[in-house]
Amino acid sequence: MARISLSRRLRRTPFSDGVEAAGVKGYTVYNRMLLPTVFESVEADYRHLKSHVQVWDVSCERQVELRGPDAARLMQMLTPRDLRRMLPGQCFYVPIVDETGGMLNDPVAVKLSEDRWWISIADSDLLLWVKGIANGYRLDVLVDEPDVSPLAIQGPKADDLLARVFGDRVRDIRFFKFDKFEFEGRELAIARSGYSKQGGFEIYVEGSDIGMPLWNALFAAGEDLQVRAGCPNLIERIEGGLLSYGNDMTDDNTPHECGLGKFCNTHTAIGCIGRDALLRVAKEGPVQQIRPIAIDGDALPPCDRPWPIVAGGKRIGQITSVAWSPDFNTNVSIGMVKLSHWEPGTRIEVETPDGMRGATVRDKFWI
Amino acid sequence: MARISLSRRLRRTPFSDGVEAAGVKGYTVYNRMLLPTVFESVEADYRHLKSHVQVWDVSCERQVELRGPDAARLMQMLTPRDLRRMLPGQCFYVPIVDETGGMLNDPVAVKLSEDRWWISIADSDLLLWVKGIANGYRLDVLVDEPDVSPLAIQGPKADDLLARVFGDRVRDIRFFKFDKFEFEGRELAIARSGYSKQGGFEIYVEGSDIGMPLWNALFAAGEDLQVRAGCPNLIERIEGGLLSYGNDMTDDNTPHECGLGKFCNTHTAIGCIGRDALLRVAKEGPVQQIRPIAIDGDALPPCDRPWPIVAGGKRIGQITSVAWSPDFNTNVSIGMVKLSHWEPGTRIEVETPDGMRGATVRDKFWI
Repeated sequence: MARISLSRRLRRTPFSDGVEAAGVKGYTVYNRMLLPTVFESVEADYRHLKSHVQVWDVSCERQVELRGPDAARLMQMLTPRDLRRMLPGQCFYVPIVDETGGMLNDPVAVKLSEDRWWISIADSDLLLWVKGIANGYRLDVLVDEPDVSPLAIQGPKADDLLARVFGDRVRDIRFFKFDKFEFEGRELAIARSGYSKQGGFEIYVEGSDIGMPLWNALFAAGEDLQVRAGCPNLIERIEGGLLSYGNDMTDDNTPHECGLGKFCNTHTAIGCIGRDALLRVAKEGPVQQIRPIAIDGDALPPCDRPWPIVAGGKRIGQITSVAWSPDFNTNVSIGMVKLSHWEPGTRIEVETPDGMRGATVRDKFWI
Repeated sequence: MARISLSRRLRRTPFSDGVEAAGVKGYTVYNRMLLPTVFESVEADYRHLKSHVQVWDVSCERQVELRGPDAARLMQMLTPRDLRRMLPGQCFYVPIVDETGGMLNDPVAVKLSEDRWWISIADSDLLLWVKGIANGYRLDVLVDEPDVSPLAIQGPKADDLLARVFGDRVRDIRFFKFDKFEFEGRELAIARSGYSKQGGFEIYVEGSDIGMPLWNALFAAGEDLQVRAGCPNLIERIEGGLLSYGNDMTDDNTPHECGLGKFCNTHTAIGCIGRDALLRVAKEGPVQQIRPIAIDGDALPPCDRPWPIVAGGKRIGQITSVAWSPDFNTNVSIGMVKLSHWEPGTRIEVETPDGMRGATVRDKFWI
């Protein structure tokens, strides 16, 4: 497999020294930043994630900060999710759409106060869209990327580990809420969230200088919990149905196609730039949608390009993420399937690099 | 060195099959697309590039297409370079700036006609900025990413190779001009341009389906010219002073800091969004600027993060790109240096991973 050529353009993170010391074996690039993909092996990392606790360098979830009197108005312009009842201290998963209803990102919005928000972004330069909109509409708001690098603590022992470093109050944080905690005299937002289904937290580490001190404190506190460096795990995230922007969806897709219709309050999200386009989709429904799909046979190679899904000799969709699941003893996958074939139980065929494979559309993801 | 984990999100190109067959050994990610970095070795690739001809998959130079009555107005809003005298058939290197004068990209603008432009971008999602501006100002223009993938032909034998495939008329294309040529019934724009100082062309391959046929035609025609697959070469581009957005400059920098003041006609570029901010910089001049710097001693490792430049115990700049040059027998590098130390001949010190090294600010790049 090809190696990655490092340069300043592929940004290091405040935790890169720790990641390297932990023996990272593979990287991807996410928001022009290094994101680890494997430590021991994808399967060993998966097993450990489901049993213990891991510390993930997800600095690549960069923040877009909105500050000023028009911050809330701008935030609502970006998304069809109705934000009027969102309170400070809450995190909302928000599809971000352009004027055609195409998805530009699927971040988590963090409401710090009425006039200060963070958007914790997936892989696209959302900053540029937000700055362009703020400029074009002459909004009274500052938009920039602050020095904030998320560090995720994921796995069944995440509460125990974090309580040792920040105190038992972390146990009281509810899902998709955050609270403030002190570390070395700095106030950090900690949310109960993260890109796995194993439970855990994301620490919004403000100030690169405290990155490695915090990393080291977590590892020192968690030795007997078998804490390890980890990263978003391909197998676990497909089992759990966690979508990946750029993989499972692009700006070609509406939120409804991605199964994110429940996050679209298109009628009441007044001001959303893509509202007109989405009203029609909301009414008529999408003609293709993301589905969990089990692919027959033995383990398949990584999905580095869309694999066509066919039925009756016609292309009726594509697979965009796939992994062999040891726990479910099948190839778990995510695909976009046309309406005619998206019913659970439908048998389809997938053109894989290992030849045609039978597959079954499922009702739900695996965990 | 860590390997790269492939996924659909790191987009393949119309030429990826050819690149793989040619034995690519390393990749970087550029505009969320795979960009080869090395075939035989960076030094062997460099030697070959300077002697023969190479075919480069630079599909990652994605195009932002502007189409419609407001296309020219929008293009001028993006850049401080005065575009009023630009003619269809011309390519202009254009710094793109935000409202603070910070560089968002340093692309080549290709004027196809008065109401149709391509912006051949460096590594940032410029599409999102342009779409945001077009939307906010309610301009009458369509903005999207067309199916166009540049293929560069670089090296001293580039004219000979291209003439065999497209006819002798390619020899008449002047620097930073383009003309239209036919391949398999398709009209393709070919410009005399490219990211090396060895001469050559960039073919704007419109339609992914003709990617591999064109790739194969070039290799078949150039066997006796010793044509090879290549890629932008780190050594050659530093010797030649070709800047890299994300490496040598970011949105923190003004065009003037990057030595691109000559491309800023700030007084006459009426409508440019960053004009107000840049008028002041144009008048007073920058306080730091990019310089070629020769670093003493033997070959240094890759510059994967900024290396501080110090003088008299103070930080006075940073190195952002470095390579050992066999032809000039020194470490060639690019750095940002404060006004107090940017005079040619100034001796400075660089904090490298191999310890402190003496270095000299140069008057000019090497080639």
